[in-house]
Amino acid sequence: MIAASHSAPRSGASGGDRPPHLGVGILGYRFMGKAHSNALKKIPYIFTPPPAVPELAAICGRDGEAVAEARRRYGYARHYTDWRAMLEDEAVDIFDDAGPNDVHAEPCIAALAAGKHVMCEKPLARSAAEAGAMLEAARAAGTKHMTAFNYRFVPAVRLAWELLRDGALGRIYHYRASYLQEWLMPALGAGDSWRLHRGAAGSGALGDLGSHAIDLAHFLVGEIAAVSAVTQDPAPHEGGRESGEGVDAAFAAAVEFAHGATGTLEATRVAAGRKNRLSFEINAETATLCFDLERLNELRIYRMDEEPETVRGFHDVLVTDPGHPWAEAWWPPGHVIGWEHTFVHEFAHFLACVAQDREIAPLGATFEDGYRCAAVCDAILASAASGRKVYVDYKL
Amino acid sequence: MIAASHSAPRSGASGGDRPPHLGVGILGYRFMGKAHSNALKKIPYIFTPPPAVPELAAICGRDGEAVAEARRRYGYARHYTDWRAMLEDEAVDIFDDAGPNDVHAEPCIAALAAGKHVMCEKPLARSAAEAGAMLEAARAAGTKHMTAFNYRFVPAVRLAWELLRDGALGRIYHYRASYLQEWLMPALGAGDSWRLHRGAAGSGALGDLGSHAIDLAHFLVGEIAAVSAVTQDPAPHEGGRESGEGVDAAFAAAVEFAHGATGTLEATRVAAGRKNRLSFEINAETATLCFDLERLNELRIYRMDEEPETVRGFHDVLVTDPGHPWAEAWWPPGHVIGWEHTFVHEFAHFLACVAQDREIAPLGATFEDGYRCAAVCDAILASAASGRKVYVDYKL
Amino acid sequence: MIAASHSAPRSGASGGDRPPHLGVGILGYRFMGKAHSNALKKIPYIFTPPPAVPELAAICGRDGEAVAEARRRYGYARHYTDWRAMLEDEAVDIFDDAGPNDVHAEPCIAALAAGKHVMCEKPLARSAAEAGAMLEAARAAGTKHMTAFNYRFVPAVRLAWELLRDGALGRIYHYRASYLQEWLMPALGAGDSWRLHRGAAGSGALGDLGSHAIDLAHFLVGEIAAVSAVTQDPAPHEGGRESGEGVDAAFAAAVEFAHGATGTLEATRVAAGRKNRLSFEINAETATLCFDLERLNELRIYRMDEEPETVRGFHDVLVTDPGHPWAEAWWPPGHVIGWEHTFVHEFAHFLACVAQDREIAPLGATFEDGYRCAAVCDAILASAASGRKVYVDYKL
Amino acid sequence: MIAASHSAPRSGASGGDRPPHLGVGILGYRFMGKAHSNALKKIPYIFTPPPAVPELAAICGRDGEAVAEARRRYGYARHYTDWRAMLEDEAVDIFDDAGPNDVHAEPCIAALAAGKHVMCEKPLARSAAEAGAMLEAARAAGTKHMTAFNYRFVPAVRLAWELLRDGALGRIYHYRASYLQEWLMPALGAGDSWRLHRGAAGSGALGDLGSHAIDLAHFLVGEIAAVSAVTQDPAPHEGGRESGEGVDAAFAAAVEFAHGATGTLEATRVAAGRKNRLSFEINAETATLCFDLERLNELRIYRMDEEPETVRGFHDVLVTDPGHPWAEAWWPPGHVIGWEHTFVHEFAHFLACVAQDREIAPLGATFEDGYRCAAVCDAILASAASGRKVYVDYKL
Repeated sequence: MIAASHSAPRSGASGGDRPPHLGVGILGYRFMGKAHSNALKKIPYIFTPPPAVPELAAICGRDGEAVAEARRRYGYARHYTDWRAMLEDEAVDIFDDAGPNDVHAEPCIAALAAGKHVMCEKPLARSAAEAGAMLEAARAAGTKHMTAFNYRFVPAVRLAWELLRDGALGRIYHYRASYLQEWLMPALGAGDSWRLHRGAAGSGALGDLGSHAIDLAHFLVGEIAAVSAVTQDPAPHEGGRESGEGVDAAFAAAVEFAHGATGTLEATRVAAGRKNRLSFEINAETATLCFDLERLNELRIYRMDEEPETVRGFHDVLVTDPGHPWAEAWWPPGHVIGWEHTFVHEFAHFLACVAQDREIAPLGATFEDGYRCAAVCDAILASAASGRKVYVDYKL
Repeated sequence: MIAASHSAPRSGASGGDRPPHLGVGILGYRFMGKAHSNALKKIPYIFTPPPAVPELAAICGRDGEAVAEARRRYGYARHYTDWRAMLEDEAVDIFDDAGPNDVHAEPCIAALAAGKHVMCEKPLARSAAEAGAMLEAARAAGTKHMTAFNYRFVPAVRLAWELLRDGALGRIYHYRASYLQEWLMPALGAGDSWRLHRGAAGSGALGDLGSHAIDLAHFLVGEIAAVSAVTQDPAPHEGGRESGEGVDAAFAAAVEFAHGATGTLEATRVAAGRKNRLSFEINAETATLCFDLERLNELRIYRMDEEPETVRGFHDVLVTDPGHPWAEAWWPPGHVIGWEHTFVHEFAHFLACVAQDREIAPLGATFEDGYRCAAVCDAILASAASGRKVYVDYKL
Repeated sequence: MIAASHSAPRSGASGGDRPPHLGVGILGYRFMGKAHSNALKKIPYIFTPPPAVPELAAICGRDGEAVAEARRRYGYARHYTDWRAMLEDEAVDIFDDAGPNDVHAEPCIAALAAGKHVMCEKPLARSAAEAGAMLEAARAAGTKHMTAFNYRFVPAVRLAWELLRDGALGRIYHYRASYLQEWLMPALGAGDSWRLHRGAAGSGALGDLGSHAIDLAHFLVGEIAAVSAVTQDPAPHEGGRESGEGVDAAFAAAVEFAHGATGTLEATRVAAGRKNRLSFEINAETATLCFDLERLNELRIYRMDEEPETVRGFHDVLVTDPGHPWAEAWWPPGHVIGWEHTFVHEFAHFLACVAQDREIAPLGATFEDGYRCAAVCDAILASAASGRKVYVDYKL
Repeated sequence: MIAASHSAPRSGASGGDRPPHLGVGILGYRFMGKAHSNALKKIPYIFTPPPAVPELAAICGRDGEAVAEARRRYGYARHYTDWRAMLEDEAVDIFDDAGPNDVHAEPCIAALAAGKHVMCEKPLARSAAEAGAMLEAARAAGTKHMTAFNYRFVPAVRLAWELLRDGALGRIYHYRASYLQEWLMPALGAGDSWRLHRGAAGSGALGDLGSHAIDLAHFLVGEIAAVSAVTQDPAPHEGGRESGEGVDAAFAAAVEFAHGATGTLEATRVAAGRKNRLSFEINAETATLCFDLERLNELRIYRMDEEPETVRGFHDVLVTDPGHPWAEAWWPPGHVIGWEHTFVHEFAHFLACVAQDREIAPLGATFEDGYRCAAVCDAILASAASGRKVYVDYKL
């Protein structure tokens, strides 16, 4: 592969033991573009030393004027209106796809073919088939690939993962997760968006929100074996509905895990008052763990083995203490972090894996994880359409 | 009907405008027997005036010594070890079935045939067929019949009903409810119970806990049209498992309502730390309502129409203010009530309906509601067994 | 003492090992009369066996018609309009003073002189001098005496006491407590009440609400040594204000404990939205304990010695488990109790102490505790008036 | 003044309507240095357009090697080990004092004399006398001066201010605030720190934590008129104790406001489990407002004028909606921010005031506010020492 040399990070200006510099070319400059750029800009001074120094090499978008403004705003070296041109930019070691779902597959596959490391926003693709093609390209490329399931990088979620690791909490009985938002409530009068069109988005609440709940299921609990699902029509809002291209406003599913746990998965865009409420509860043999994204600094834990018995109760753990994930990089205990910091952790992990040739998995989601999430999404849609339980087909 | 005269309540000792006295004969003296007896004993002095004065006429149980002790403890006039004998007691106007599920149908049907008013613990029966026979007997009897879904009588739940009445909160998008307990956790070492045997209980977490969540769905949201469900094997505990007579430790279902709402239903006996957590969330067009039985004095409400917008948030309403359901009967604002008081409200409603010949529905659950709940339970079991969405068959 | 024989409880009808019966004569039939009567009526069937069976011997109030109605409502054997006459009733073993503050001292002293056991509502008196006279009478009588600080009998509060016992949580650094209500908010338009007149009440928020916070300080933390206080004028409401007989709407104090802890005490009747919020936080060397009366089934605990460190957090302990105070008498875990049950526990303790000649202290508050609380109240008023720190004078 | 020209911001490189560039020279590079630097680095791309573009001109610290490393880490142009030299740097328009309390007065006064705009960390000084000298220098200089009370810049706190503005919530009855931390708990074994020595810090929990609660009182409620306070000896930890130079581990005060409100103020470093809990509650005539820094995205509000009455309750407002303070600069609703962002808002305000010659007050705290806070701190220490209520002396 021509660009294979890119995977060997260039060393920084300051010499041998300084962290390497890695050029990033980003596609997209709106919501996710801002979140990713912010993360890249914070890494060099928040981590001491940073795993690598990201260089803001290039930014790409269709609207030349807007992307030029974004270049100035975030400090990218160059801007492009054609991602193919950006992929030819030698300063780009990492291709970061922060664009809508319909511009994931083609650019990522091309980037992989060009030997770039690739970070791609979630959901990885609009279908398992599309995601599968991306995974195959990633395997062929041999570079690092990551699906930006940033909630793996919430300290409280990582703490849950640490607690559950190696079955430390015993058999898991249940996982119930829901991702609730309200932005499609009629009273809020949200305008149109690519997120409401099947062509651009693949699905609605399912791919946008549900995918996070599915990925966390895979991250924390295990493989989802089967789903029995319903969706709700896009009645609350128009979107692509007239053209028959509408998406689900909501879905709900009863799920079974390969190891026997059962539970529910749900996402909706019409839950009044729920701004960004991804929450889950895991009932294991020796503990229950609960999380709510609107209070992301906290993990709620109940321990069956608490001593003495009389003080057993749900612990509101403020995950900002010295021993907690990433806490050292930030502030003293109780000085809470925000949503944006999940991206800082996520990119730090990605850069470390690239710089030190480490594995993205299991802490980060690879394209394989992105593909497996897409397989569950497909199964949910198939179940809702057929009225039958659907066993997830993970075979590529 | 011979005993029809019983349905005309006898007047009390104090004369014309004093509330009538109604004799109650109860079957069962353990958990539910205690809860019901406590309710009956409180009604005469908590309500001023009470809708009727319940007379503790008789108590029945299989263990003669234990039931005699219970008679003394609660102050019943007589005790029986044969419910048939109790039904012949003329002092018994109301038959209150507080026994296990497998002694619901026969005694209740006999009581109805004897012209008694009947209160029966939930779930009404072990199957829709059994419940249907009870409903038919009730219709034939013409007396009052009620299924003891006491959580309709939590002030916060009644407040939710009042807020939702006549579609006042607009279209309902979602209902998600779960009833979580932990008593079958291996670490707690619960012993055997009739609740773990299919023969006595009909089902496990489904009928015991899930039935409450189903009844509240019918009470607050509307008719459940279809369910897609999974159950979890009774592995965590033995119960009747060896004999193939075990029951579900948990179930989860994606549900569709007749008017289009979707959601989830779930119950489990293996959720560490969840002592008695029945919770629901209803997402409607202009509000979201949330409830948690472990904090039963509170209703959590989000209003889309809150003015000004900047103060919109979930309200923790402490449902103890003068305008709140049943608040007048109790204590000043903030002087919270407990779980047992749901039975006081429930029996007060039942006595009032008997005394004043009013309708149990829609505030209370009739045998028809008990039957409809059983139909949903059957559908859930059928869906879990077949791996298909099952449309609930409500036809008797 | 003539009536000394009363202190030997009469045995019940059922024979030797049955609990004794004790006749109760109560003064007052409104808010507290209802709460006390309810407690007395529940004890015989909630506790198995009960420590004693209270017999509702007599009820007394100034309004003959109203007290007769209360007699019928609660089932007292007789009623009186003169407490002196009631004290001559031989069926009265226990005098229960549930009347306003200005009818505490004289009747209680007379009852003690008549050899009755005495339960008196809080605050014990309108001043330390008045309380001191009551305490002296109690000491002289040799019967049981109790001040009805019922919040010592909240299971969560008792659990806090058990955890703190014998200094088990190490040195205590802080106690901060406040009792917030809203009933005097102008918008609520509360009418006049004896609670707003200095002559009848002694003080306002201080004696009515603050006394609970002070008693819990003595119960849980230790002796209050000094207070530096301010009060707020009764401006928000009229009450006895015109006549110069108004009471404090609120007070706030910085406090020092004899063993070195510091903290704050506060009470108010003008805190919008606070229905009945008595809350405290105790910071000790190895734990913090928090309580809120509006969620009285819960104790919130943080343990410094939690293992592993990463799961340290505030525990919401639902104090309804088998090992928790009084839990056995009630319902299964998570089936919460209400405010009224604190009186059930309180009277059960009192009856047990009378029946078995056990000490009221330290679990219950004696007249000595009532006196000590009054001494702190006096010190708070003196500090507010003088603008100086006042050391509490506990000497009788 | 020679350097007065500095107060006219230099225009940016990009031309006329681009925001001006302002050079910042910072003293201190540890906790506060990091927080301030992070804020400065985020402003240019978070605000569109930013009020001004801060140029990281210089950083100063005593340890040459460490400060050189900090320069590289954060990207400052130059570093100094002598603040006097930094003040002569013409690129420095703004002097930002992020050092310990004992290096506030002299450098800030010098900076003001040099015509710099000055931001100084809180508490402004170790005593009112010291703060007064700084205020006089600021008045003489005519440049912008700000005390870094960053919690005025929490969106929820700003929202509280907006709600209270112009007495919109009616008379204020109470303000109760406490700032609780645990870092001096013996079990945590914190090492020594300048924060434990009176010479360097002035006071302990009072100046470090209490000053925030005092400033918020002034910001939200009004002038504190008098305090009755106690402090707790530094027993829990050693610090400068041996030398008689220890500081308060905690203080508590009953307070009176000029307009009649009463309440409590408290701070401690020995509250187990309280990581960074600054909380307050304001009881006003038509609403109660509550805030807790550990959940800084939320404001809890109770409205007496809520319609209908039955849904009155405390609202948990997630202050991330479009109409909320600073929300537009960040992320969609429910995508919460962190503690660090308070500094971003604070510096954005400061830069805007400098760039557009606007007033720092009332949104930001000036040196006058810093002085007034110091006057309250002095009064608290005087009250604790004398055992008397002390009226705050605000006269310079």
